[in-house]
Amino acid sequence: MSGAAVALLAATRRRPTTSLSLFLSRAARAGLHDSAAPAEEKARTRRRRRSSTSRLLGPDIPDAWDPLPRAAPRPPPPGGAGVDYGSTTIIDGKSVADDIRFQIAEEVRQMKNAVGNVPGLAVVLVGDRRDSQSYVRYKIKGCEDVGIKSLLAELPGNCTEDEVVDSVSRFNEDPSVHGILVQLPLPHHMDEERILSAISLDKDVDGFHPLNVGNLALRSRKPLFVPCAAKACLELLLQSRIELMGKHVTVIGRSKVVGLPTSLLLQRHHATVSIIHAFTTNPEEITQQSDIVISAAGVANLVRGNWLKKGAVVIDVGTNPIEDPTSDYGYRLTGDVCFEEAVRVASVITPVPGGVGPVTIAMLLANTLDSAKRAYGFATESQELV
Amino acid sequence: MSGAAVALLAATRRRPTTSLSLFLSRAARAGLHDSAAPAEEKARTRRRRRSSTSRLLGPDIPDAWDPLPRAAPRPPPPGGAGVDYGSTTIIDGKSVADDIRFQIAEEVRQMKNAVGNVPGLAVVLVGDRRDSQSYVRYKIKGCEDVGIKSLLAELPGNCTEDEVVDSVSRFNEDPSVHGILVQLPLPHHMDEERILSAISLDKDVDGFHPLNVGNLALRSRKPLFVPCAAKACLELLLQSRIELMGKHVTVIGRSKVVGLPTSLLLQRHHATVSIIHAFTTNPEEITQQSDIVISAAGVANLVRGNWLKKGAVVIDVGTNPIEDPTSDYGYRLTGDVCFEEAVRVASVITPVPGGVGPVTIAMLLANTLDSAKRAYGFATESQELV
Repeated sequence: MSGAAVALLAATRRRPTTSLSLFLSRAARAGLHDSAAPAEEKARTRRRRRSSTSRLLGPDIPDAWDPLPRAAPRPPPPGGAGVDYGSTTIIDGKSVADDIRFQIAEEVRQMKNAVGNVPGLAVVLVGDRRDSQSYVRYKIKGCEDVGIKSLLAELPGNCTEDEVVDSVSRFNEDPSVHGILVQLPLPHHMDEERILSAISLDKDVDGFHPLNVGNLALRSRKPLFVPCAAKACLELLLQSRIELMGKHVTVIGRSKVVGLPTSLLLQRHHATVSIIHAFTTNPEEITQQSDIVISAAGVANLVRGNWLKKGAVVIDVGTNPIEDPTSDYGYRLTGDVCFEEAVRVASVITPVPGGVGPVTIAMLLANTLDSAKRAYGFATESQELV
Repeated sequence: MSGAAVALLAATRRRPTTSLSLFLSRAARAGLHDSAAPAEEKARTRRRRRSSTSRLLGPDIPDAWDPLPRAAPRPPPPGGAGVDYGSTTIIDGKSVADDIRFQIAEEVRQMKNAVGNVPGLAVVLVGDRRDSQSYVRYKIKGCEDVGIKSLLAELPGNCTEDEVVDSVSRFNEDPSVHGILVQLPLPHHMDEERILSAISLDKDVDGFHPLNVGNLALRSRKPLFVPCAAKACLELLLQSRIELMGKHVTVIGRSKVVGLPTSLLLQRHHATVSIIHAFTTNPEEITQQSDIVISAAGVANLVRGNWLKKGAVVIDVGTNPIEDPTSDYGYRLTGDVCFEEAVRVASVITPVPGGVGPVTIAMLLANTLDSAKRAYGFATESQELV
């Protein structure tokens, strides 16, 4: 049975909200190109639906222990006992991303009508890494689809660090640019921290600035930007109605791009978080105890079926290029999770591709839009994502 | 058998380095008041000893998974099998603190001789909380003992938020002040974040500024200050020769004062960290799997013996006031850990009082000294603490 078929079957059998989601998402995709559709009404529907799921901040719980934790009853196993392949929900990340992109396109249209400007995203690409070029292509295509202006500065791999900093500085000074991202990784001879530090705090749509990271870590504060992959993981969990409060979530990987911000964001939602990494000596013992496993290790098929407990929720952030002569680009992307094994154990799982990836790009567009809203003092009725 | 007796017994029986530590610490205590003692030689001895234990930054490990983690062999259980009460090491925090304070006193003396100035710490105390008054007394006494100048601004509990901010601002402008701390908690009618934000980044000796927190979270960066209790926990572990790389450490509590910075600092040492808190539904299941448990929940006797695996290392940061009419202040402090139960299971444990507390105050002095060194461009041979 194909993944898509399983997704539809699961959606209709177990999660009516998902079938609604699929329906609305198809309408969203149509709406992106169908000017005859009543966009306002669709947007209102989305805002109503999103407002029931997306929240960045829970209440700032005092750090005292409640000896009778009535506030947090023990959650049932996400998928209950006896989960089998047929009842596993495969999250359709493309559909969730389309839904978000529709909302963004609508707000960009409102912004253009109200203030005469659209958001602008600048991308700095250094060198000719095949995977980096693909990611940048996806991001620029994403901008075009929602009406965000995109600018690309391409530099050769043998350019100097100062030339990259100069590109960033020019974008900092450009009022039509509201978000700047430097595609990582940079060539080894460059000081990544120095280059990222050159990005203005208020254009740091990747959320890597230490002040944004610190404000994400401190529950009593709020960052200007949350890294896109972390927002994508949370959005997928919230859209799938996965309870987070009190749940044991294991995050595999601790990079500033995914693992670190995801572990911090999960704690804001009152999850119990374990962070495992290359030096962890018993990763499977910890994942086997977890209600939710989020993998961003960057190793294909690292997470096997026997790493998971029955009914676990699995979010696979891995995008590992595998040689594939049959692909247009000579390679294809595979996740950190051995999907064929995990899908027989998990209650909910994201595929690769078509899971976290498209939502991550949508979150980049959302961060760029949020930045432009701040720059123009432009507010909409919409709910903040995640 | 009393805790102190067990400590000495353990020190002589199992940890020769500890008996050396006890010896040197007694010498240190003497040295603080004994000008006839060869201070330079003692300081050199301490620097040699510390240099084998204290490190803030490990190498910045790329966040890729090593399928054959030869770099991190599975660590043996800290205390081995069959740990019994008699073989449990009770860490003497006062002795470790005395050692650090001796080193600080020596460096303050060198600074005074070299630049004619000493470090200055300013404390802002609002209201008349009994426990806050005690903590401030300890901190000021600690300054006096090592030659750091202390300033105290006491404000009534019914003062305005602006009056507190004004006090902080005056200290910001005072070049003789290198560290400012606002004793928490503040009265409920005050915006804690606004007041803490008023502290200059370069005088933030408590390490609560979001930029310091972000730089602590990002392994490729380095904060100006690390919160004192987190540094104290790491110093006690490193001084006790506890391996951290790959170990499973559970941190109980997620406050910005202890839990959050400790979990971030442990990750810099490549520990596998789980953070549990008031909403965690199965805390004991996670602690029972942990090589090291660090508790900062603020609940007396929360951690029972059956929460721990045999040979676990237990660091108790809890300082919970318990009514005690026989005490001078009408109360005494007790930890989060049920000591009498835990001491029969753990291989290493800190007592309360006399464990993390004195080292935390020593770290405040160390942060103040580091700040003054930066302000005066003054360097010594000494090893940075933790």
